[in-house]
Amino acid sequence: MAETEKKGPNRRAVLGAGLATGALAAGMGRAQEADPLITEVQDWASSFGDPVDAAPYGTPIRFESHVVRRNVEWLTESPVSSINFTPIHALEGTITPQGCAFERHHSGAIELSKADYRLMISGLVETPMVFTYEDLMRFPRTVTTAFCECAANGGMEWGGAQLEGCQFTQGMIHNMEYTGVPLRLLLEEAGVKPEGKWVYVEGADASSNGRSMPLEKALDDVLVAFFANGEALRKEHGYPVRLVVPGFEGNMWVKWLRRIGVYDQAVESREETSKYTDLMADGSARKWTWVMDAKSVITSPSPQAPIRHGKGPLVITGLAWSGHGKIDRVDVSLDGGKNWQTARLSGDVKPKALTRFHLDIDWDGSELLLQSRAMDETGYVQPTKDQLREIRGLNNVYHNNSIQTWWVRADGEVENVEIA
Amino acid sequence: MAETEKKGPNRRAVLGAGLATGALAAGMGRAQEADPLITEVQDWASSFGDPVDAAPYGTPIRFESHVVRRNVEWLTESPVSSINFTPIHALEGTITPQGCAFERHHSGAIELSKADYRLMISGLVETPMVFTYEDLMRFPRTVTTAFCECAANGGMEWGGAQLEGCQFTQGMIHNMEYTGVPLRLLLEEAGVKPEGKWVYVEGADASSNGRSMPLEKALDDVLVAFFANGEALRKEHGYPVRLVVPGFEGNMWVKWLRRIGVYDQAVESREETSKYTDLMADGSARKWTWVMDAKSVITSPSPQAPIRHGKGPLVITGLAWSGHGKIDRVDVSLDGGKNWQTARLSGDVKPKALTRFHLDIDWDGSELLLQSRAMDETGYVQPTKDQLREIRGLNNVYHNNSIQTWWVRADGEVENVEIA
Repeated sequence: MAETEKKGPNRRAVLGAGLATGALAAGMGRAQEADPLITEVQDWASSFGDPVDAAPYGTPIRFESHVVRRNVEWLTESPVSSINFTPIHALEGTITPQGCAFERHHSGAIELSKADYRLMISGLVETPMVFTYEDLMRFPRTVTTAFCECAANGGMEWGGAQLEGCQFTQGMIHNMEYTGVPLRLLLEEAGVKPEGKWVYVEGADASSNGRSMPLEKALDDVLVAFFANGEALRKEHGYPVRLVVPGFEGNMWVKWLRRIGVYDQAVESREETSKYTDLMADGSARKWTWVMDAKSVITSPSPQAPIRHGKGPLVITGLAWSGHGKIDRVDVSLDGGKNWQTARLSGDVKPKALTRFHLDIDWDGSELLLQSRAMDETGYVQPTKDQLREIRGLNNVYHNNSIQTWWVRADGEVENVEIA
Repeated sequence: MAETEKKGPNRRAVLGAGLATGALAAGMGRAQEADPLITEVQDWASSFGDPVDAAPYGTPIRFESHVVRRNVEWLTESPVSSINFTPIHALEGTITPQGCAFERHHSGAIELSKADYRLMISGLVETPMVFTYEDLMRFPRTVTTAFCECAANGGMEWGGAQLEGCQFTQGMIHNMEYTGVPLRLLLEEAGVKPEGKWVYVEGADASSNGRSMPLEKALDDVLVAFFANGEALRKEHGYPVRLVVPGFEGNMWVKWLRRIGVYDQAVESREETSKYTDLMADGSARKWTWVMDAKSVITSPSPQAPIRHGKGPLVITGLAWSGHGKIDRVDVSLDGGKNWQTARLSGDVKPKALTRFHLDIDWDGSELLLQSRAMDETGYVQPTKDQLREIRGLNNVYHNNSIQTWWVRADGEVENVEIA
């Protein structure tokens, strides 16, 4: 919070300034003369609720059953090598609950117990090692919050506005607080030989999903993580151990982590040649495009979160993130990018983690072309889709970090559109 | 993180320094010559796992079924007016998942839909108001992480070491990231009259659980919250709306928030007279003891989390918090308070929020008397139980923030003890 307060206008002053008149005018909080919910004693106020032993491990209330991961059947050939999407249109704050955080599997989510878990470190090391889960729990731990975004997030939008809902266009992302062992410590334990320059990481599932990364990254901020949002990783997020690679594309965050190989060069595996490379207009492919560039999206209003309350005070909220560090600023446009207003950054602004932004407006009921534009601490500005297409062409499905446009109609319904 | 790095020795240097020799000596990571988990292809590496449509909302893997809230049957007369405990011995990091965060109800957890929800502001205000859920969603929001601790956390320990497990001795606490409307904005909307000095908050459940707080606090950092850890509040945590009162005792964090009354004096309700006051040795009672003083506890090793791996590298981990602001330092003693070592603070250190600490030791297999001692940014130091008893006597059940002692035996088992 301290970070945010240093920049821009005083947050307290901005938060809610000038709201009073608009709110009353819109009928918000006007006492209802004969509202039985106020004047009558309700059932829930005159009987017992659930006891403390009702749910040893709780789940969402039935009224929230729409806030779930969803997949798109036509998107892939098989549901064991597919993706689902975080319901970001219905979430707030910055943490993504594990229960509705998107999944991407290459051969399905496997069930692997701690007793059966092994992690091998092999290749160009002084002492090849095999760690049990208990071994890993004896190494020093650290705690880091990071976003994990699939390289293909927004990928279906390269060719045009296609999917109705920010869950589907931008929901291949989640943000959790991880606890684990810095990969650096395990590599130091094994002793990387001077000729070791690359690390190859591999999962225990049938796909193995092997990826190469430079030794520098492996020694920097990569975690061998066991806990997410305070508790054990869920099965679908790699229980008992996954790799956390802050700022890098989700495919490298190997789940059910099985092996770490140290080599003098990259492996150039399937997952970093035929996949997860960016096919350019001229037929060449960009490789090693690991870092997720700065991006943002308005989560509400959005196609799955239309405006139902009519004109007057409207909360515009969304998420911003950058694989290069902290978000510095988010601007919001109501008119498709002609004019911009700076949004509030709410809560903590952490490097390589989701940042929540809010902008409070007095909606006059006219149509809007809503956009958000993120800037990160490197000075990078989130591009328009056309700016990105000019450089990258239309063959690619990965790394679409362009500005998303939502068309808010006068009736409050919202559509995914593209503006020329 | 930046906060922590400013203080004490460089974190990177400390994290894992000198580990290599001890780890290898203890057999950690020693390659297993004939381990079939390494040499044989396993079932999970040769078949498909779960598809992406297996669990629209996921729950913990079956191997973690012991990580749940637990209640103590003899503690209270009825489970609808009782407490359960967060399994803090099995968690890591700082976030508490809603699913296993402790519950305290005075008449059970009620089911209240957004459509049926109303919030009244009455009393000494210019315009009495009634807000629907949708009204509240149109006010400016902010995001805050805060711990919620029951005033009676540790209360059973006043008379001696009684409960085996830090889940039971210190588990009436959770820590979540909340999104909601500052109460200040709603009060400004209603317009507090000059004679209004206190705010009385009340829930929609049968107990109503009304509490008074000074207007200054209500205008400071109190939130009318709808989201916790990114998603809607769970039923048992006050869906759809609860009060978040950072640093203050949990009883004031009213769930299913129904009414906010502004008055010229405190109400002196049942919940702040016969309960939630501190009965002293002389029969008088301290009242308005709202703020939770600085406290810490080692979560592992602890009675429910014994040492199974024998001597050698051992991770000591725990939680620290203060209702007065940020945790400044946590010290750990292995010998019942004779000698102290400063622990690492891992991850973010936020005011009025749980802070994770770690200390890595090379355990020689001898008995330990483990203690942790928190210091907050005001300079306050967590007291011993005897220091606290000297001032507060033994009649009280609330606000026991004293140092907890765990006796680690040579076989790795851990007991809750008290040292003279």
